[in-house]
Amino acid sequence: MILHTDMNSAFRWPVRVYYEDTDCGGVVYHTGYLRYLERARTEWLRSLGLDQSRLRDELGLVFVVRRLSGEYIKPAVLDDQLEVVTSVARQGRARLHFAQEVRRDATLFSGNVEVVCLTADTMRPRPLPKELPLESLDVA
Amino acid sequence: MILHTDMNSAFRWPVRVYYEDTDCGGVVYHTGYLRYLERARTEWLRSLGLDQSRLRDELGLVFVVRRLSGEYIKPAVLDDQLEVVTSVARQGRARLHFAQEVRRDATLFSGNVEVVCLTADTMRPRPLPKELPLESLDVA
Amino acid sequence: MILHTDMNSAFRWPVRVYYEDTDCGGVVYHTGYLRYLERARTEWLRSLGLDQSRLRDELGLVFVVRRLSGEYIKPAVLDDQLEVVTSVARQGRARLHFAQEVRRDATLFSGNVEVVCLTADTMRPRPLPKELPLESLDVA
Amino acid sequence: MILHTDMNSAFRWPVRVYYEDTDCGGVVYHTGYLRYLERARTEWLRSLGLDQSRLRDELGLVFVVRRLSGEYIKPAVLDDQLEVVTSVARQGRARLHFAQEVRRDATLFSGNVEVVCLTADTMRPRPLPKELPLESLDVA
Repeated sequence: MILHTDMNSAFRWPVRVYYEDTDCGGVVYHTGYLRYLERARTEWLRSLGLDQSRLRDELGLVFVVRRLSGEYIKPAVLDDQLEVVTSVARQGRARLHFAQEVRRDATLFSGNVEVVCLTADTMRPRPLPKELPLESLDVA
Repeated sequence: MILHTDMNSAFRWPVRVYYEDTDCGGVVYHTGYLRYLERARTEWLRSLGLDQSRLRDELGLVFVVRRLSGEYIKPAVLDDQLEVVTSVARQGRARLHFAQEVRRDATLFSGNVEVVCLTADTMRPRPLPKELPLESLDVA
Repeated sequence: MILHTDMNSAFRWPVRVYYEDTDCGGVVYHTGYLRYLERARTEWLRSLGLDQSRLRDELGLVFVVRRLSGEYIKPAVLDDQLEVVTSVARQGRARLHFAQEVRRDATLFSGNVEVVCLTADTMRPRPLPKELPLESLDVA
Repeated sequence: MILHTDMNSAFRWPVRVYYEDTDCGGVVYHTGYLRYLERARTEWLRSLGLDQSRLRDELGLVFVVRRLSGEYIKPAVLDDQLEVVTSVARQGRARLHFAQEVRRDATLFSGNVEVVCLTADTMRPRPLPKELPLESLDVA
């Protein structure tokens, strides 16, 4: 169910666990990992020269999550230094399918997130921006 | 430092504590109480017939927090059934000064929040909407 | 991929959208729906007489999310009055598979959440508590 | 009301604004700044060699927020690169009074946070750990 891509050439983003991320079970609250994934997708876009605030202001373009799935393998705890590993697993005309993992020593969370590109005004799908140099990505 | 108003005629709003609100210290994370206060201010407005989404769409009006202060007296924990007690302590042309408390049996958090009414486009202060029947409030 | 159960006899829990739930895209942030699902699972347990804080303190038992998947169909916005519809789709010795939806007029979000019952100390799976009267549930 | 200290020798910590931090008013939700302050206090402690998870596990010691106040001067928005400036303004036997600011070009948020050192088991105040080399701080 979880797509796998070559993680060797994936985009890596560090995340630190703070009190705000944890719950009274003593571990990171289950939506925390999904926020970490979003930060990593944002930074992957930024690494390609694309700021989402500028995409919206200049092109009227927004990315929204359409579908996600994930497996919680081992918990992260306060003060953990984590790494989010992000790859584009598949690409459509208006869609990006990300395979993402949250790792410490081992993989703690593994998930897939489908993001769709919309025109902000109409919330209708539109082609991915040409500014997104996807041909340069190492897509499985 | 904390303003006090007659809490007898204050607006009361129930809040339940969920896992999402807690941290690994075993109690509600310190910003949780402030989110509870905001829900209560929103419901106080709604009890007066004012939805913030409609205020923005129809009048181009938004409320933003300008200043806040608070004291953490006793912690709230998972499953607690709390009550937020909200009064308008003072009122300016464009401002509302709320005195708010989060209570269980006793007061857990006590704070003051100054909210200012802005024109959304310009982010400049504007008079409170006439739709806000403040003369009917029991203001200290 | 999304399991479907008879939603007629499902557990229904109301949720209001506040500012804290939204993002600058103008809609509920994508993890917000998952927090709503968790509140509904908690209230479903409570409706059966089970508080998670008591399960932990008295039985040393915690529930954690092991797997989740979901589809974002239509966005929720500020001030929306939503309903979370929760059913147990499948049940194992130590696991509960929930089918959950967030609805306004139509379904906005539809997802599946697998929760596992653990001994808090060891974080190892343990049988669901006998106190959970699952035979009374309308399970597909 | 806001204490001022020499900000020249203060501890500086960078923060990036993500979607998770914003609300549908288009700016950072008002509790976001307070989460940023907490990250910065945590990193200040870490810069002194103190991890809060180790303080709790090895010394049974936790820090909790007792009091806070703040002023929202200008809003932060998506993609902003911010800096949190943190100083110890005053120090008691069991307390630390922080003066903190969130800055972009100018100061966006300015606040004071009083943190108290507790024994985790009893939640009673205890002296600050000797491991905290406060005499080396530039305290106003």
